[in-house]
Amino acid sequence: MASEKPQLRVGLVGTGFMGKTHALGFAAAPRVFDLPYDVVLHSVADRTDGLAAAAARSFGFARSGGDWKRLIADPDIDVIDITTPNALHKEIALAAIAAGKHVYCEKPLAPQASDAREMADAAEAAGLKTQVGFNYLCNPMMALARELIASGELGEVRTYRGIHAEDYMMDAASPFTFRHEAAGGGALADIGSHALATAEYLLGPIERLMGDCVTVYDRRPDGQGGFRTVEVDDIGRAFLRFASGASGSIEASWVSTGRKMQHDFEIYGTKGALLFTQERFNELHVYSMADVAGRRGFRRIEAGPDHQPYGLFCVAPGHQLGFNDLKTIEVARFLDCLAGKGREPCNFRSGARVQALVEAIQDSSRRRAWVETP
Amino acid sequence: MASEKPQLRVGLVGTGFMGKTHALGFAAAPRVFDLPYDVVLHSVADRTDGLAAAAARSFGFARSGGDWKRLIADPDIDVIDITTPNALHKEIALAAIAAGKHVYCEKPLAPQASDAREMADAAEAAGLKTQVGFNYLCNPMMALARELIASGELGEVRTYRGIHAEDYMMDAASPFTFRHEAAGGGALADIGSHALATAEYLLGPIERLMGDCVTVYDRRPDGQGGFRTVEVDDIGRAFLRFASGASGSIEASWVSTGRKMQHDFEIYGTKGALLFTQERFNELHVYSMADVAGRRGFRRIEAGPDHQPYGLFCVAPGHQLGFNDLKTIEVARFLDCLAGKGREPCNFRSGARVQALVEAIQDSSRRRAWVETP
Amino acid sequence: MASEKPQLRVGLVGTGFMGKTHALGFAAAPRVFDLPYDVVLHSVADRTDGLAAAAARSFGFARSGGDWKRLIADPDIDVIDITTPNALHKEIALAAIAAGKHVYCEKPLAPQASDAREMADAAEAAGLKTQVGFNYLCNPMMALARELIASGELGEVRTYRGIHAEDYMMDAASPFTFRHEAAGGGALADIGSHALATAEYLLGPIERLMGDCVTVYDRRPDGQGGFRTVEVDDIGRAFLRFASGASGSIEASWVSTGRKMQHDFEIYGTKGALLFTQERFNELHVYSMADVAGRRGFRRIEAGPDHQPYGLFCVAPGHQLGFNDLKTIEVARFLDCLAGKGREPCNFRSGARVQALVEAIQDSSRRRAWVETP
Amino acid sequence: MASEKPQLRVGLVGTGFMGKTHALGFAAAPRVFDLPYDVVLHSVADRTDGLAAAAARSFGFARSGGDWKRLIADPDIDVIDITTPNALHKEIALAAIAAGKHVYCEKPLAPQASDAREMADAAEAAGLKTQVGFNYLCNPMMALARELIASGELGEVRTYRGIHAEDYMMDAASPFTFRHEAAGGGALADIGSHALATAEYLLGPIERLMGDCVTVYDRRPDGQGGFRTVEVDDIGRAFLRFASGASGSIEASWVSTGRKMQHDFEIYGTKGALLFTQERFNELHVYSMADVAGRRGFRRIEAGPDHQPYGLFCVAPGHQLGFNDLKTIEVARFLDCLAGKGREPCNFRSGARVQALVEAIQDSSRRRAWVETP
Repeated sequence: MASEKPQLRVGLVGTGFMGKTHALGFAAAPRVFDLPYDVVLHSVADRTDGLAAAAARSFGFARSGGDWKRLIADPDIDVIDITTPNALHKEIALAAIAAGKHVYCEKPLAPQASDAREMADAAEAAGLKTQVGFNYLCNPMMALARELIASGELGEVRTYRGIHAEDYMMDAASPFTFRHEAAGGGALADIGSHALATAEYLLGPIERLMGDCVTVYDRRPDGQGGFRTVEVDDIGRAFLRFASGASGSIEASWVSTGRKMQHDFEIYGTKGALLFTQERFNELHVYSMADVAGRRGFRRIEAGPDHQPYGLFCVAPGHQLGFNDLKTIEVARFLDCLAGKGREPCNFRSGARVQALVEAIQDSSRRRAWVETP
Repeated sequence: MASEKPQLRVGLVGTGFMGKTHALGFAAAPRVFDLPYDVVLHSVADRTDGLAAAAARSFGFARSGGDWKRLIADPDIDVIDITTPNALHKEIALAAIAAGKHVYCEKPLAPQASDAREMADAAEAAGLKTQVGFNYLCNPMMALARELIASGELGEVRTYRGIHAEDYMMDAASPFTFRHEAAGGGALADIGSHALATAEYLLGPIERLMGDCVTVYDRRPDGQGGFRTVEVDDIGRAFLRFASGASGSIEASWVSTGRKMQHDFEIYGTKGALLFTQERFNELHVYSMADVAGRRGFRRIEAGPDHQPYGLFCVAPGHQLGFNDLKTIEVARFLDCLAGKGREPCNFRSGARVQALVEAIQDSSRRRAWVETP
Repeated sequence: MASEKPQLRVGLVGTGFMGKTHALGFAAAPRVFDLPYDVVLHSVADRTDGLAAAAARSFGFARSGGDWKRLIADPDIDVIDITTPNALHKEIALAAIAAGKHVYCEKPLAPQASDAREMADAAEAAGLKTQVGFNYLCNPMMALARELIASGELGEVRTYRGIHAEDYMMDAASPFTFRHEAAGGGALADIGSHALATAEYLLGPIERLMGDCVTVYDRRPDGQGGFRTVEVDDIGRAFLRFASGASGSIEASWVSTGRKMQHDFEIYGTKGALLFTQERFNELHVYSMADVAGRRGFRRIEAGPDHQPYGLFCVAPGHQLGFNDLKTIEVARFLDCLAGKGREPCNFRSGARVQALVEAIQDSSRRRAWVETP
Repeated sequence: MASEKPQLRVGLVGTGFMGKTHALGFAAAPRVFDLPYDVVLHSVADRTDGLAAAAARSFGFARSGGDWKRLIADPDIDVIDITTPNALHKEIALAAIAAGKHVYCEKPLAPQASDAREMADAAEAAGLKTQVGFNYLCNPMMALARELIASGELGEVRTYRGIHAEDYMMDAASPFTFRHEAAGGGALADIGSHALATAEYLLGPIERLMGDCVTVYDRRPDGQGGFRTVEVDDIGRAFLRFASGASGSIEASWVSTGRKMQHDFEIYGTKGALLFTQERFNELHVYSMADVAGRRGFRRIEAGPDHQPYGLFCVAPGHQLGFNDLKTIEVARFLDCLAGKGREPCNFRSGARVQALVEAIQDSSRRRAWVETP
């Protein structure tokens, strides 16, 4: 029996780790969600035919090739999904947009905010839908956090603390890579972007900020017996002022020894508070002044079917979603958005915004002065 | 370019929640692992053609139908995957074995240990491979726990405490279902089976035990204004003696208000100890006497690429696997086992063993006496 | 200006670690509480005059001596406080009672339940007040737990799990001591007594039980190059039936490597649940079905002035009481009880009861049968 | 038998909550420690004779009176202990110093850094010993943290995060008090001072900083139907640069709903990391790169006799010190320092330093510029 759903044909560019994660998302989404489309894994491209062919086999795509431009040129393809190195995002996305295709792109959208803005402008001018891969925002517990704030259960939010710290650059001996070039954006762009996206997702726009960026290791081995000067920061901090009146701070670090996924936030309002860590992202800790005195405390809420779309993955609470499940939700949301159902959770405009915040912090740190955000 | 891998054609029987979980596992496994087979989602069966057709579309199977016997009869199908209600497991599995097919079956293998044994005997006699869905055992942190024990890092294990407690039957008003019939096996069979499987996975065979089973709610609403007598236990406990000389206990409860996934164990050896909870199953807590005095403590190890196959899902530690990822690992292991690589992690014999332990506890509780395990 | 409070003159027998703890309690109690008496630290006794004199100086007692019988004989002394080795408790307590003195005695009250009962009988016959040092019961969070149960906030309690595990006997090479003699009572008497006292404090009387006692190290070095046979158990477990209808279990172990103070309980009722660990005894975790669906979770309540008498120690929550503060509360409660205010929280009758439960478990384990408690 | 120790006669000024805490410390210290002095609780003063007399009775002091100047004038008194409101600290301390007495003073030393410096100068000029009540620094786990850093076990420390957040001012309706006057210093002086003292205790001097102070509630009820303008900050943040080269941040807030004692720090070095929260101050979490890959994790070290002087309070680990025990340690350290044994852990110079840091942050925030610390 034929499905009555329209087809959505996907062309994937880039087959590294994030390509695999997207492929898993496209494979799982139709099995978990009642999607508005029949997803067709149409074509995959990478640097060589061989890489692309291997990925096509492994990821379940029908066609493959070593040239991403053929995917852009293929009229059968509806969506271009970009998981290449960051430096290529812009060229591919603009080409896809010019060809009238919707674009799904991994974060960060582009090394420079100006590029990211150009990409967002192009998509909007063409009336196309876009999505940037901030999949942590697709966590049902993140939605619960936002709902608790939006509903007023926390009262007026007064203060925010956001952190994203890991340790993958803590070793002074780890070699210079593209991430250490200016265009890489440093810890702030790489993971601080999560902290910034989360802050605005939950509390709305940041109006002003004061940055503090630190390069801990100012040179790294170049792999040829010498050293190369690091052009980015290992740590980025900022004081924040939100349009809502709340104040706060964020911190990003990729030299926090022992930390693997300290993407945390703490939110304090006049009626309650929230604590969250991505280290245990199936939990949200909520404090409520509405509780009786002597019985108040941070309550550890475990993700369950009460927190959709968790229930589509597991019928019972406590079973836990994984990192890749968040990508599956992201895929499903993008498809809903393509079908006109629901807003784009994080489109190119949102991606450009995050990049602009990163640059505002870097600029503020250089100038040693508070700055208005764009 | 055609793949050179042999095909493995799967026939799925049952399309409820566990069917969906298996479908996700079969979709993800080839994308995550380098499997020995090309998995072909051949056919799916459920009670009606309509249910089966809908599942085929959603799960990505090529054919469907309302009669599972056609899958058994289909010579193209290599593996029968059973996710029906427990009462049907035996009939389908025996038919599949008789037809020379490998069988993958959800837990519990059968309501009665004698049935489970019959199924294991049949599969072994036919030289076929089998797998029972104890996917918690596929957690990389569980493998780490076993490795810590096997390597002697914990010294001689002296005591074990295993728990599996949830609260899905804590409401006295929740109606009588098949789970409350004698064949359902009660909390001990439903979730205590996980605690028992884990105990023997980690410490080896249990030789003797003393059971204590309790029915908290002896009748439940029959949905027609009356009540029906509950035939099973809400809580099952046991004292344990392992062949290794260790002693311990397990407890299963489905009336533990507030608990969603308290599948915990604690293991104490002469040189160290382990703590684990399925509530945070990407962590293992390890204590080692080898640490310097004054610096000792339970160390929270987060799952990462050091704990394979985690790294095939996520390149970096701390990102976390979800419940469905454990099923993906289970699928991959079964395929490896079919290809002659690796042992069956939990075959029908293992499934029958768990069932036998459940019955030994129930028997001991009834007789109020210690019993030898079979 | 002279105080108008009556004096209470205390004679302390035993100046080891528990003697020091009691001395701290007597020093702190008048400063923390508005006691009904002026406490006079009258006399202290130990095995030698020298030991006693040193303790008198350090602890702030006026007189001292090497013979406890002089304290008993001294008509000025109102209360005899016993912190000697367990084997001496009975003789001293009976002498004190015969002399008409109230008695405060460290736990365990006596190695044998029959002795403990004899002590309780004597005190009651003489109309004297007694107290046994189960100071964990004086924790304000323990009182909160009891209040949550008594008030019905947890609904009907269905299941209980109590543990007291430490590791001070985990080393096979640690030498034979009086604790390894039959009269020592083993892990069950030494620390399991806490688990039993807590269970009955919270849920009321245990009616029936089934015990499981294990000697892990059946001999220990005698300090003279040989070994001596251990006469007690390293681990004691029991299934429990409470008069209330609840079922449960307890476990005691002094060979749980890495555990320093795992005195935990978990209580599940029809409307809520409680989790507690003495490892973090200023917290109680409470789950309530009265919370809205999707917002439920175990709430970490931190001790504060809402949980009296915490506020007499610290004006603000979160500052935390320490082990010795619990003893101070115990002292204050005993003094209130002497003044006719409040019940004896844990008198000799209670102490004898705990001892009887220990022996019931040992007896049941030996007979491998369920037993009724006395 | 008379003690051979010299006497140390203490005069306490102020009998509110902190007076009680000090009284408890003076009562407990001789019982816990082998002090170099016999402590004599000589006299106590408060605003009225009545208050002072009541405190003398309750705290165990021999004399009392309504005029603190009589304590200063009394040649028998060796040490003046000040626990009055902050505004009186300076006058009393300078008078005591002029009279040749050692001074023990609660934190903050004085509302203005210049006053605090004057007090430190006076004490040093007179050759007298002083102590400020930063008792959190007396926690054995804090000493362990410092030792781990000093020994090089953490490698070079790269980043620091310190927080002290509570919620006692979170209610907009809570009335204007002296704490809301400029001299009160706000959240930064009140509790941020702990965060600053801890930061320098562990990592050494802060060289430069950038402050961000926020007044959330700019007016508060004056108790007479009107409002009064709040002169201080509810939140204070700072970026930090340590002389060691490490960078970091601190945050203080008294409007963090739900937080009772979030005095936390996180320290990341090239070889390891430390996590600590005063909410569970008997624990320190330590990560070490020296552990084998795949076995690394934050290790929860529980306070015990390995971490002196814990063992003088409790013979076994895991029993836990309380807030008041930290004050007892502080008292003992001050007495050691008076006797020429050990350094003053936190003298007036240290107290002035903390105050100077508070003012530097406030100054930086006002000027919106980085500042050098004095």
